[in-house]
Amino acid sequence: MDSKQFREQGKQIVDFIADYFENIRSQRVIPDVRPGFLQKHLPTEAPSKGEEFVNVKEDFEKFIMPGIVHWQSPNFHAYYPCGHSFPAVLGDLLSGGLGSIMFSWASNPAGTELEVVVMDWLGKMVKLPEDFLFEFTKDKPHVGGGCIQNTASESILVTMLAARRAALDRLRNRYPDDDDDVIMSRLIVYSSDQVHSCLDKAAMLAAVKLRKIPTNDEDQSMNVVALEKAVKVDEAMGLHPFYLCASLGTTSTCAFDDLKKIGPICQRESIWMHIDAAYSGPAFMCPEFRPLLDGVEFAESFNFNPHKLMLTNFDCSALWVKHRDMLKKAMHVDPIYLRKRSFMGESKDWEIPLGRSMRALKLWFVLRTYGLEGIQKHVRNHVKMAKLFESLLAQDSRFEQVAKVVLGLVCFKLKGTANKSKALLKAINNEGLIHMVPGELNGAYMIRFVVCSEWVKEEDIHFAWSVIKRNADKVLQGGEARTRHMGVA
Amino acid sequence: MDSKQFREQGKQIVDFIADYFENIRSQRVIPDVRPGFLQKHLPTEAPSKGEEFVNVKEDFEKFIMPGIVHWQSPNFHAYYPCGHSFPAVLGDLLSGGLGSIMFSWASNPAGTELEVVVMDWLGKMVKLPEDFLFEFTKDKPHVGGGCIQNTASESILVTMLAARRAALDRLRNRYPDDDDDVIMSRLIVYSSDQVHSCLDKAAMLAAVKLRKIPTNDEDQSMNVVALEKAVKVDEAMGLHPFYLCASLGTTSTCAFDDLKKIGPICQRESIWMHIDAAYSGPAFMCPEFRPLLDGVEFAESFNFNPHKLMLTNFDCSALWVKHRDMLKKAMHVDPIYLRKRSFMGESKDWEIPLGRSMRALKLWFVLRTYGLEGIQKHVRNHVKMAKLFESLLAQDSRFEQVAKVVLGLVCFKLKGTANKSKALLKAINNEGLIHMVPGELNGAYMIRFVVCSEWVKEEDIHFAWSVIKRNADKVLQGGEARTRHMGVA
Repeated sequence: MDSKQFREQGKQIVDFIADYFENIRSQRVIPDVRPGFLQKHLPTEAPSKGEEFVNVKEDFEKFIMPGIVHWQSPNFHAYYPCGHSFPAVLGDLLSGGLGSIMFSWASNPAGTELEVVVMDWLGKMVKLPEDFLFEFTKDKPHVGGGCIQNTASESILVTMLAARRAALDRLRNRYPDDDDDVIMSRLIVYSSDQVHSCLDKAAMLAAVKLRKIPTNDEDQSMNVVALEKAVKVDEAMGLHPFYLCASLGTTSTCAFDDLKKIGPICQRESIWMHIDAAYSGPAFMCPEFRPLLDGVEFAESFNFNPHKLMLTNFDCSALWVKHRDMLKKAMHVDPIYLRKRSFMGESKDWEIPLGRSMRALKLWFVLRTYGLEGIQKHVRNHVKMAKLFESLLAQDSRFEQVAKVVLGLVCFKLKGTANKSKALLKAINNEGLIHMVPGELNGAYMIRFVVCSEWVKEEDIHFAWSVIKRNADKVLQGGEARTRHMGVA
Repeated sequence: MDSKQFREQGKQIVDFIADYFENIRSQRVIPDVRPGFLQKHLPTEAPSKGEEFVNVKEDFEKFIMPGIVHWQSPNFHAYYPCGHSFPAVLGDLLSGGLGSIMFSWASNPAGTELEVVVMDWLGKMVKLPEDFLFEFTKDKPHVGGGCIQNTASESILVTMLAARRAALDRLRNRYPDDDDDVIMSRLIVYSSDQVHSCLDKAAMLAAVKLRKIPTNDEDQSMNVVALEKAVKVDEAMGLHPFYLCASLGTTSTCAFDDLKKIGPICQRESIWMHIDAAYSGPAFMCPEFRPLLDGVEFAESFNFNPHKLMLTNFDCSALWVKHRDMLKKAMHVDPIYLRKRSFMGESKDWEIPLGRSMRALKLWFVLRTYGLEGIQKHVRNHVKMAKLFESLLAQDSRFEQVAKVVLGLVCFKLKGTANKSKALLKAINNEGLIHMVPGELNGAYMIRFVVCSEWVKEEDIHFAWSVIKRNADKVLQGGEARTRHMGVA
């Protein structure tokens, strides 16, 4: 494809995307396909000769589009939002179009410095303590800062590895007779039992123990008394508590751990407190939600994902640390081809991959085109829509809300056995007009309704509610019908 | 930004990218900027109110573009290529435009299945043994397959972690009296001393020992006698050899380890052999280079990066394994919101991140629009250009070639002390008309000339050579002048 064809095809694809969004409400939100649906239509080998792009694009529309889940549809209420906005899409287009990657400052001065700038912007927007920023004041050494990671899984893994390294260095002095492997085998991580599965994965990969602390029934926050006790018991058993992942906005119910209570315990016990606010982060830009982040001053690291609630395309997980050197110590490599001018924002020792794309570009586009107020408005709209759904739910006595609504998630179920709710969700997803996924709270099945799209309006919530009610009618009547029938038999 | 503005701005950006490529030879390939150049132009806080996109785009051109390294310029000869092509850019645009991510089949049926299809296509194109493919025959259980990872760093890390897990399971049976942490502390990884720095990082993160085996002087391949001896010595010391990373196309000199010799040793010693062919992989689509991959049948896993030599935008590292279960065992998590229909290509247990974008799309676009023959042509053009450079170099007795040219890399230096070559490279990069980075071979400084751009032509090589020669004249005359001056003084 030459540049002339690129102009033509590129513009057609821009139109395709615009058309897609203009008509996004007109189709099922999840496709009606079965595993293997695509494989059987595609050849088993790549072509020998190159084909015209128009043919490939035709096949894209014919074969791929019918198997897409419409994550950006206002009728998509599953998982958590996957960030998207037109300015972010264009930021990525420019980044990919230039094809300029980065690891050292010299490999991409603009991309490297822009990331430093926007990470400080973003940190200030959620009012992080200044220790987390690159920007330094007279009183503060210049040792903190932020960087863009792929996902929260990486943000958690790299901070856990940095904490592991720091703990080894510290414990070697305290236990000079113990070998590193003995110390390693005694390291233990904490989180609430509501933590995201990526913490399990990180602990598995880092080869450290993990203890999940029970949560309080009323708000699914970590039970701090249980935490204190667990740390005491573990230490008595010879284990070394070294890392705790506090969750702000859990996956199941959007629960918030209490940093102000957990933080002092971590500080006292020399435990690296990491905060995962993957979904909730942008909410802290609103004064009414910022108290949920109080206690962040006790943390050593903090992440949230602009690619969730902040209108930024995947991938973009923002991670801040108070001590950049801790990451460097855990991950430093120094081949000759990277030895050039150094700069504080260089990524090579911050992340698992060496090369990275210029993700700061889309973030910059989002922050400038929406501004602080635009993002606040987006967050507040999601909360308002969730509250609207909550109020509709409250009017129907067949349903039960099972957790407090804080941001854009409403957890609910049909009263009665789990099977009723399972049947309801199955019926709804089979129909495909809206999409939700299940969750679990204290072992009990529930349905998660999440506000996801940038474009969601009150009508969309009423539409979703009408779909849910209609399917509930069907499922409950079916159930009653079956019961009657059984009674007769 | 609404869809109408997106149409307008998106098309302008498409034109911007096309213009950029049409004029790419007209500018310096590396910018003339100093650390901090961008920071000082940008405000220290994000705006409160959203701004017009056109203003942001203007600032992009004014502040960002002057700090970009032009990785796709035919005058860029540094590092290794960063893959790029117009079809790949459009694949990413569609993926980002739809904003549909994936982890389970249910979250993105089309993206999940397309990845299975293109990974099999790609595996067949480099003639991988069928154990590495999803496609199964009557004789073969259905246990291998490939997936897209971010970068080679991840491909190596996840296979090392899978190998660690498999080794622990195996060694627990052999050493029932040893605790896991004792076994862990005795695990040891091997590679040649020419391996990419990401292996050092992976071993650090996986908390296992790493031994680098010396290489043969004539071709920088791993010294197999030294490997056998090291394994023997390590085992005698009670260590457990469990993973070896063979390099095909090293970063320094594009050297190739001999899989046919290393493989049987690994097989005998139950060492997981991984092959990293990050750069060289696509060359194996050409029959004349495929013998370099002979012995792949001994490997448990193999990766190459389409985002290097295969015209695919970053990020896209292709990883194949013979036993998918090995990855699953090391990284399996199973939260309720992911428990739906399962499908062999699901990524959630293949990678560190949970969510992923639809990267198979750009790969599909590249494979179809170039076809096998188009990619072969691209590889052969790079090799031809490197050979041309080699022949020019051979005509100038001031220069010395320091390693064999196999693909698109030529390593050379000025005869005499390293300082001369350092001065030459510095002069060239200061001028900024072409860009190269240094390397090291046996502790000696050298300059790496890499063919990188899709659009590189013979004229570009002649241009690069003229820049190098002219600067050599300057540096060597300067050197002589200084010598004379010192003589006079």
